[in-house]
Amino acid sequence: MENPVKNAAQKTKGGSAIRPTRAEDYAEWYQQVVRAADLAENSAVRGCMVIKPWGYAIWENIERVLDRMFKDTGHKNAYFPLFIPKSFLEKEAEHVDGFAKECAVVTHHRLIAGPDGGLIPDPKAELEEPLIVRPTSETIIGASFAQWVKSYRDLPLLINQWANVVRWELRTRLFLRTTEFLWQEGHTAHATEAEARAETMKMLDVYADFAENYLAMPVIRGPKTASERFPGAVDTYAIEALMQDRKALQAGTSHFLGQKFAEASGIRFLDATGTLNLAWTTSWGVSTRLVGGLIMTHSDDDGLVLPPRVAPAHVVIWPVFRGDETRAAILEVIESVSKALRAERYHDRPLELEVDLRDMSGGDKQWEWIKKGVPVRIEVGPRDLAAGTAMVTRRDKGAAGKESVPLSELPKRIPELLEQIQKDLFARALAERDAHTVAIDERAQFDRFFTPKNANKPEAHGGFALSHWCGQARCESAIKDALKVTIRCIPTFGIAGAQAAARITEPGQCIVCGEPSQGRVVFAKSY
Amino acid sequence: MENPVKNAAQKTKGGSAIRPTRAEDYAEWYQQVVRAADLAENSAVRGCMVIKPWGYAIWENIERVLDRMFKDTGHKNAYFPLFIPKSFLEKEAEHVDGFAKECAVVTHHRLIAGPDGGLIPDPKAELEEPLIVRPTSETIIGASFAQWVKSYRDLPLLINQWANVVRWELRTRLFLRTTEFLWQEGHTAHATEAEARAETMKMLDVYADFAENYLAMPVIRGPKTASERFPGAVDTYAIEALMQDRKALQAGTSHFLGQKFAEASGIRFLDATGTLNLAWTTSWGVSTRLVGGLIMTHSDDDGLVLPPRVAPAHVVIWPVFRGDETRAAILEVIESVSKALRAERYHDRPLELEVDLRDMSGGDKQWEWIKKGVPVRIEVGPRDLAAGTAMVTRRDKGAAGKESVPLSELPKRIPELLEQIQKDLFARALAERDAHTVAIDERAQFDRFFTPKNANKPEAHGGFALSHWCGQARCESAIKDALKVTIRCIPTFGIAGAQAAARITEPGQCIVCGEPSQGRVVFAKSY
Repeated sequence: MENPVKNAAQKTKGGSAIRPTRAEDYAEWYQQVVRAADLAENSAVRGCMVIKPWGYAIWENIERVLDRMFKDTGHKNAYFPLFIPKSFLEKEAEHVDGFAKECAVVTHHRLIAGPDGGLIPDPKAELEEPLIVRPTSETIIGASFAQWVKSYRDLPLLINQWANVVRWELRTRLFLRTTEFLWQEGHTAHATEAEARAETMKMLDVYADFAENYLAMPVIRGPKTASERFPGAVDTYAIEALMQDRKALQAGTSHFLGQKFAEASGIRFLDATGTLNLAWTTSWGVSTRLVGGLIMTHSDDDGLVLPPRVAPAHVVIWPVFRGDETRAAILEVIESVSKALRAERYHDRPLELEVDLRDMSGGDKQWEWIKKGVPVRIEVGPRDLAAGTAMVTRRDKGAAGKESVPLSELPKRIPELLEQIQKDLFARALAERDAHTVAIDERAQFDRFFTPKNANKPEAHGGFALSHWCGQARCESAIKDALKVTIRCIPTFGIAGAQAAARITEPGQCIVCGEPSQGRVVFAKSY
Repeated sequence: MENPVKNAAQKTKGGSAIRPTRAEDYAEWYQQVVRAADLAENSAVRGCMVIKPWGYAIWENIERVLDRMFKDTGHKNAYFPLFIPKSFLEKEAEHVDGFAKECAVVTHHRLIAGPDGGLIPDPKAELEEPLIVRPTSETIIGASFAQWVKSYRDLPLLINQWANVVRWELRTRLFLRTTEFLWQEGHTAHATEAEARAETMKMLDVYADFAENYLAMPVIRGPKTASERFPGAVDTYAIEALMQDRKALQAGTSHFLGQKFAEASGIRFLDATGTLNLAWTTSWGVSTRLVGGLIMTHSDDDGLVLPPRVAPAHVVIWPVFRGDETRAAILEVIESVSKALRAERYHDRPLELEVDLRDMSGGDKQWEWIKKGVPVRIEVGPRDLAAGTAMVTRRDKGAAGKESVPLSELPKRIPELLEQIQKDLFARALAERDAHTVAIDERAQFDRFFTPKNANKPEAHGGFALSHWCGQARCESAIKDALKVTIRCIPTFGIAGAQAAARITEPGQCIVCGEPSQGRVVFAKSY
């Protein structure tokens, strides 16, 4: 396919490859990074995206790693129907309120030619009961669990599903909010409340571990307030990350569902004494939204920056020709280096290499791979040939990330570099988050923190405000109405910096009403 | 979960673990094998199945191997919308005829409370244009390809998608025909007819390779007749396997789409001379139906038999206790053997082991794993302990497959055994197919071949009939109407046995009308 990068602005002297820059227009910068890296595009179907190969390969890496983590914690994959009978959705009152408003409804099972020749739904093929395209699968999986669980010996039941789901969204943005998205949803049933609560927290930890150690995206963990809970959940926990525009992104959720869905679906078991009990259930999920979080955490004004552990390719290598006499020798070096590197591993997989032999200008080639975010670029030209070296450049460092490496040392040096990049990206993101995580005790300061200086063209502003809250919904909504700021979570741990950590659990006065508070919560604007 | 196997019949003396047997009622035997192995079950949604963990793990292995094969042949994964606008389906006339009759139609994007309190589709949220849940994605992917392809440099475009699709089926059977199923669909665009045709054949070969070398399921390859083509295709090629009831299963298809879909979607490119041309496209797919084919090819009257290369577990090991004094020592052996085996590999992955320490009778345990089809079972009891051996049993051989193996030899012996089982399963299936692949030149013999002796309770009958056909649709439909027998493919290769192979391309007379024929085709009843 024609490379869309060619159509995007090339970097000009003193300029940037992505226009507008983050500072100029963050939302548009995001769209342009996605476009320049060829990750995804809008489709003809409202709100549904096409995930292009480079973007899908990131998702495949996310899937591969998480799938292993889920299996290592005892979960098994299964697959449940795409469609949910309307009556199933009706079983749990809060759940239906949350999801009936934005769902795709299947009403017919056939099209026929209409009066004007076009196709229309066949009136004779109307379904007796409409089907909902799953927005989430608690109710349909609950129906299976009710059949599978008979005795305490069948528990815990630990299931995960990789699937597509549909939520009819008004405003969509590639990866961050789309009508259809890809995700995984874990669903578990347990004999006791304690076990179900432990599972909820364990999977929250798995998500935090993955976000920090693979996506290099620092996260805060904790429960949501009642108003932000998953519809039908007793408790919802989330991991929250701070993007470069200082808005929070909810990157994953883990729900303790109590016995509400077990009751709705009839998941009952005989305990060791022969008594029939309701099971305790959980559910937890992350989605293609993680790709959006990844992009917004690390990318810069030259395009995508990928953490090596989830990058589709770790390294790209290409020859630089000057005249014909060294051409064959350079190609030979490219081939032998590629072979040597492909025999190496980085972290949990073989080193993945792109060898770019296309006949195009070195500058175009370079900028294409910069915009695509490949962690390390290797060039071999006549000077390198003479010196027996290769020019190695880190994507995350600009000119400072350039080094000339002897060919024989590449197989050792590249995995080292990748590990360094992975660590540096996390450290940079963490420093950025810490710089914008502020304990605020006065309402005036709170309002200033969340108010842009220029309302017409708002600069990056705000961040995570650690402030006291009395626990009353009316104070929460007062802040939301005034500033579009919400409580992201009630942090229990995971705020970096000793100072911040110390302040979370100290008592104080609610930032809104001044009544007593047991500790601080995390306020932020959010995606 | 409670083990459904417990509810299934245990093997009785001289009897079988699955009732009815294949000979008694093949269709019901199939359902019982699926149930006893805990592979899948029907859901509350008409025609949609729940794929349970043991069944899904088989699909995961299929996916893993095929995905690598697709990538090795230059394809990249991407993801396209679940929904297809009605207008897209209308673009290709034959395609819409083929798929409009059996599709799920989304007409609304919201539910609201109806007059009787239940939910109804909100009349205010009716879609302007209905959306179809994809039955296949030629048209929606074609729309993307039209944007991606500008010049000959963008070709070939080689894309694959792993996805769920929906076809509203009247009669469904677990794995074999379900309203929703999981599959992969390859979609490619090329600059020339020759390249597109080569791609079509290459992927057919990939499917045949996979079916024979992983599923151990011998297949015949060849083009379909016009009446059996994919709606809108110029040519459809298929791999066809013979099940134990001597019905054919179409196990995978590869379509040469010519320029018809390129025309419908507007996939055009500038060639090297600057002329605008229509691209040539292909599509190809296999689905969860392969799991059904796998079951029907190898399983026996005791349940599922799994080829090692796609088995969720290669080996199951358990202790046999007689009294308490050897208990600890036996458990120690189980642990050290498990550790040693897990360090080994079979074929392309680490040896996968189930260690069954559940407190239940050895007989129940044994029959459960037999029904689940694990290729090799290992038991360690007091006698084995004394002799320093383990009792190793092959699933595919019954009593003849038992051997006592010194513990130290297990790590070497088990992978050998698995390879032998893989080969033996293929050889057995091939012999079975060859025994029921017959060249038939007389209509009376043809009719006898495809007519059960007892119409009320039909025994296994028929098979692949290699017979002459003149090429006329009316002769093809005469056979179909009379016997429910169809032309599975026009074989070009892949029929085992020198005699059969020699006979395929010799001229003869049509089995129906007696007019000249250029060669034989494969007739069979089918799923």
